Amino acid sequence: MLRFITAGESHGPGIIAILEGMPAGIEVDEKELSLELSRRRKGYGRGGRAKIEDDEVQITSGVIAGKTTGAPIAVFIPNKDYVNWKDKYIPIVAPRPGHADLPGMIKYGFEDCRPVAERASARETAARVACGYFAKKLLYKEGIEVISWVTQIGQISADLPPMDERMYDENVAKKLFLLAESSEVRCPDTLASEQMKKLIDDAREKGDTLGGIFEVAALNVPIGLGSYVHWDRRLDARLAAAVMSIPGVKGVEIGMGFKLAEVSGREALDPILISKRSSNKAGGIEGGMSNGEIIFLRAAMKPIPTLQNPLPSVNIVTKKECRAQTERSDICAVGSAAVVAESMVALVLADALLELRGGDRW
Amino acid sequence: MLRFITAGESHGPGIIAILEGMPAGIEVDEKELSLELSRRRKGYGRGGRAKIEDDEVQITSGVIAGKTTGAPIAVFIPNKDYVNWKDKYIPIVAPRPGHADLPGMIKYGFEDCRPVAERASARETAARVACGYFAKKLLYKEGIEVISWVTQIGQISADLPPMDERMYDENVAKKLFLLAESSEVRCPDTLASEQMKKLIDDAREKGDTLGGIFEVAALNVPIGLGSYVHWDRRLDARLAAAVMSIPGVKGVEIGMGFKLAEVSGREALDPILISKRSSNKAGGIEGGMSNGEIIFLRAAMKPIPTLQNPLPSVNIVTKKECRAQTERSDICAVGSAAVVAESMVALVLADALLELRGGDRW
Amino acid sequence: MLRFITAGESHGPGIIAILEGMPAGIEVDEKELSLELSRRRKGYGRGGRAKIEDDEVQITSGVIAGKTTGAPIAVFIPNKDYVNWKDKYIPIVAPRPGHADLPGMIKYGFEDCRPVAERASARETAARVACGYFAKKLLYKEGIEVISWVTQIGQISADLPPMDERMYDENVAKKLFLLAESSEVRCPDTLASEQMKKLIDDAREKGDTLGGIFEVAALNVPIGLGSYVHWDRRLDARLAAAVMSIPGVKGVEIGMGFKLAEVSGREALDPILISKRSSNKAGGIEGGMSNGEIIFLRAAMKPIPTLQNPLPSVNIVTKKECRAQTERSDICAVGSAAVVAESMVALVLADALLELRGGDRW
Amino acid sequence: MLRFITAGESHGPGIIAILEGMPAGIEVDEKELSLELSRRRKGYGRGGRAKIEDDEVQITSGVIAGKTTGAPIAVFIPNKDYVNWKDKYIPIVAPRPGHADLPGMIKYGFEDCRPVAERASARETAARVACGYFAKKLLYKEGIEVISWVTQIGQISADLPPMDERMYDENVAKKLFLLAESSEVRCPDTLASEQMKKLIDDAREKGDTLGGIFEVAALNVPIGLGSYVHWDRRLDARLAAAVMSIPGVKGVEIGMGFKLAEVSGREALDPILISKRSSNKAGGIEGGMSNGEIIFLRAAMKPIPTLQNPLPSVNIVTKKECRAQTERSDICAVGSAAVVAESMVALVLADALLELRGGDRW
Repeated sequence: MLRFITAGESHGPGIIAILEGMPAGIEVDEKELSLELSRRRKGYGRGGRAKIEDDEVQITSGVIAGKTTGAPIAVFIPNKDYVNWKDKYIPIVAPRPGHADLPGMIKYGFEDCRPVAERASARETAARVACGYFAKKLLYKEGIEVISWVTQIGQISADLPPMDERMYDENVAKKLFLLAESSEVRCPDTLASEQMKKLIDDAREKGDTLGGIFEVAALNVPIGLGSYVHWDRRLDARLAAAVMSIPGVKGVEIGMGFKLAEVSGREALDPILISKRSSNKAGGIEGGMSNGEIIFLRAAMKPIPTLQNPLPSVNIVTKKECRAQTERSDICAVGSAAVVAESMVALVLADALLELRGGDRW
Repeated sequence: MLRFITAGESHGPGIIAILEGMPAGIEVDEKELSLELSRRRKGYGRGGRAKIEDDEVQITSGVIAGKTTGAPIAVFIPNKDYVNWKDKYIPIVAPRPGHADLPGMIKYGFEDCRPVAERASARETAARVACGYFAKKLLYKEGIEVISWVTQIGQISADLPPMDERMYDENVAKKLFLLAESSEVRCPDTLASEQMKKLIDDAREKGDTLGGIFEVAALNVPIGLGSYVHWDRRLDARLAAAVMSIPGVKGVEIGMGFKLAEVSGREALDPILISKRSSNKAGGIEGGMSNGEIIFLRAAMKPIPTLQNPLPSVNIVTKKECRAQTERSDICAVGSAAVVAESMVALVLADALLELRGGDRW
Repeated sequence: MLRFITAGESHGPGIIAILEGMPAGIEVDEKELSLELSRRRKGYGRGGRAKIEDDEVQITSGVIAGKTTGAPIAVFIPNKDYVNWKDKYIPIVAPRPGHADLPGMIKYGFEDCRPVAERASARETAARVACGYFAKKLLYKEGIEVISWVTQIGQISADLPPMDERMYDENVAKKLFLLAESSEVRCPDTLASEQMKKLIDDAREKGDTLGGIFEVAALNVPIGLGSYVHWDRRLDARLAAAVMSIPGVKGVEIGMGFKLAEVSGREALDPILISKRSSNKAGGIEGGMSNGEIIFLRAAMKPIPTLQNPLPSVNIVTKKECRAQTERSDICAVGSAAVVAESMVALVLADALLELRGGDRW
Repeated sequence: MLRFITAGESHGPGIIAILEGMPAGIEVDEKELSLELSRRRKGYGRGGRAKIEDDEVQITSGVIAGKTTGAPIAVFIPNKDYVNWKDKYIPIVAPRPGHADLPGMIKYGFEDCRPVAERASARETAARVACGYFAKKLLYKEGIEVISWVTQIGQISADLPPMDERMYDENVAKKLFLLAESSEVRCPDTLASEQMKKLIDDAREKGDTLGGIFEVAALNVPIGLGSYVHWDRRLDARLAAAVMSIPGVKGVEIGMGFKLAEVSGREALDPILISKRSSNKAGGIEGGMSNGEIIFLRAAMKPIPTLQNPLPSVNIVTKKECRAQTERSDICAVGSAAVVAESMVALVLADALLELRGGDRW
């Protein structure tokens, strides 16, 4: 069983993750891991913070001579900015709507929202990408790839091949991924990418922020990951949790998702043929199991909740109305969230694969 | 910690659930539980099967003198139809698209799909509703209610107060729930209910099936359920898994969900005011925690995958193309799924409440 | 991953267990399960209760046509005595020392100890034996056997081959097991068996009770179950928990156990040879993993805490000193505990085996 | 729920632990943590390694302004010796009997035992002591203390007040602890301490090693930690696992432990009186729950498996018989194991306390 715990605050010494349960013998590489982390970090719309973050990730345990040993893998991502924050404490007294600030302060009984903001920061997701790297390496040994791209930012939608194709055809999916990798907003449509960047510029100017939609596809997944036998072993349930847990994500759908509610059974299902199926509206999951088609999901991310032109809030000390506090922050991080989603999906799939290769079929 | 395991096959002796971790001292009642189960069972579009199912549920342990004792609670829901199936074995050799049949058979190495169909049957969700009943009783002691209604079946959408209101105003939500409870399709719009029933009749005639959309609201939830401190403790992630695990559900969104991807931060967030907030677009969850507003989620259910006028399939014995096998089945079960979703949401909230009242704030 | 939850009270309708995670395709048999349950039930020193208990166990799910299906397995062991207790409630107001009565009542806030006694009853262990049956069947497919015998009851110790041999030589272990199976106290020494029975008779006459020591051996265990990589994956830790969780067990040792504290390293360790090792003082576990030798553990059970000639207690209503309440009870149940221990050990080993065959070595 | 994962190898950059689930608001201190770690490190019989280990522990997350924040706590214990090992790789080709070497190499498929030895090293237990420190701070807020002492090393037994008193009388226990804290072998008997040191000197001279017995007591534990309602929630089971998981521990007993097997019920049980009970033979646990008396357990540790005058082994490359490889190692580490046991016990109790204060009694 794969399990991982992450630790670390936004302005603390660094982010740490421990991943337990990785099999021995997987070749891994610190440079490659660093590269993977940089995929999350960059992107048009990311704030200054993302630029300060660095690649000096260290694998401090669980790997010997370039191979996993089966022991817990620890990863440390130092925070370059820490020296500047070490002896500072800037309280947050005007909680930001949409952020963990207010409920977090109340839950844990803090006197201001700083301790919340430190941990609730999306910087934590770097740790998930680090863990996801190892899961991806495991999957890759079996030929499985997890890829993603952005389809929408604010009101700009990419002009892409129809969803039917994106979730059905491996070549289409791979091509979209390659295009996304070279886009600053991780969007495969070059024209839309430019418009999205402009939209981000506009938002920045207005002190506003943006969200969007991304898609994740897992290619070459064997049949039978997950199980219908118990609700918490269903692959769809586990994927939904993994992706919904990414800060800002407010919706997840698998395959045609919400569109399946509108059509009849005849239109919704993917006929079984002797050759490959003729469609993949189910997004590669039937009965809570992978069915051999591309696993495909979409997620919606709300706009970043820290606004430079802030919304109304209440000062928790004076109890008076005010504007929400501001912090250095991103304008838009949909592309980064997509990379995090890849990692979370990879971790779920790797765990399900370990279970499948284990005792499911004796 | 609440944990539950369910067991039972569609045509076996009955469905069993054990719920472990319920506090002692909660008043419960077998009749009330039976009534709750009947909410899942009934509904226009449910097949003959739903009518055979019965209310003779037994609580066989964990309750003494009408109160929970802290011991594991076992519930047994006997299957009246069992006598007719006891000595029969009807193999399924033409797997149904959209069902667990094919990937399940491959995963577990069966010779036909019957063993899959028996467990993958939605009848298992009766066990979840039974567990949910206890969770609801616990929540109710704290004034928390979990309710649901159907907004769409196939292409018929209910004419309801706008989403902004449904997720914000407790009175609106409660009224929708009451209306839904007296609708045969659990839809609060009387006119749409009639149209939905007609659509279901049409589908039945064509040997087709339908899906739809439902909404779940949890009222009076205290601040601080779930936590931002670790991804798997986030309430939104846990709710997404719980609802996505319901057979047929292909999409889950919280608050405004996918619509939040299109708007800017200024439009997406719920300003913090001294009095109650002016909106609840976040659906009651910020930073993975309940924020004191209504917890609101929507889910899309695909059409039932067993069609009386079946889709292409392949006979797994002859390896020839054929039509998918048929079984007695529902035409539409969106209302039932909504009741199951209430139960799953209640179980997640109850568990989070047990955790909150524990050590989160010392 | 194997997981199981049990439910049921001593005088309720029955004992229920659900075992989740069993692979598909294991042949099982209700009669054989019933026989396994009877091994726990019988034994000199068991009370009238054990005689009332019956073999009418039902597997209500997870098995089709004599084979496990991968779905959760539910077992129901009805309680014949239930009809006599159904409408009775006999409060326990004078808690029994050594029993869960007093701390249980305080923990859960009951008004008397009856609800505690109902669940804390050792009858619950029937459910564990039922789950253990399935684990044993899985292990047996791999040639692994889990066996046990009693070495001591009160001050009567069996005259057995030395511990060095018992834990080293499979033939010795098997022979001890066969002898134990035909002894009413599950002791391989016929003479000691008779003395033990006499001791039990004496204790019964005095209104007293007895405990003892038993040993469990697992034969033909492959190398590498469990792991040194994390404390909670160590096989020794998991076995210790599994056996210590049996009511009445107060000590567990692996291999030479406490005796290893007295000797030097040279005397304590099992040299590695090209052929089989020359000793097995480690009891088959090194570094928290099985090392290919017999897994051997010993456990001490305290005397049954319900005495017919009871010890001082305090009436929880009058707050006055009194004698502890009595219930129908066993005089000695060491042989039964040994059978339960076999089951718990089998469940741990089966789970570890599922993990090993999974991803530990890719 | 408290959970923790540790990572790190013996000669790697350092040992890391993440502890998740600690409530917010507990005052902690890096210096105090460092002191606690030094309690594990020192001791007569510890090797040169223990001297190289250092106190420069860093809390890198989960603590702000000297208080826990509810976020995961990460602790990093750097390895001073790392610089010397960084570019070295000294294979272990002659596995040490009693060590994880041989089964570990086979399980994970390594070409030599070095990767096993690195992780199976007892240095990992430093991470547990670090986690235990936080658990102790939580317990201490409730007045609970966890203490330990050594009673035996090899054949030298301490002359201590009888077990009946040690497990019953808080003052006796505290006094033993204080004496142990000033003994180089953590033994409360000054004379025996000297003899133990001599024994250790002798063993060192002979290239041999030693084990022993230690006792752990938890004072002022409230009634009702753990539960009889399910086997895996029993406090005794959880404590047994926690202590048995410490490298080298081969036996655990609670209260009078194995001695309870020899006596009758009348002699074994602790009568319930209006005032404090007259004995504590149960070691503070009845029915798997704390009963308000001192929680008392004993554990046996086998001798260290790395001998300077090594036992027979087999060279895994040449397949020829040889002597087991040697490493720098301790002669005796019973005192250190006792400190680790304190930590593990504290972690179990803290978790049970969080559960109790949560929903067990509504």
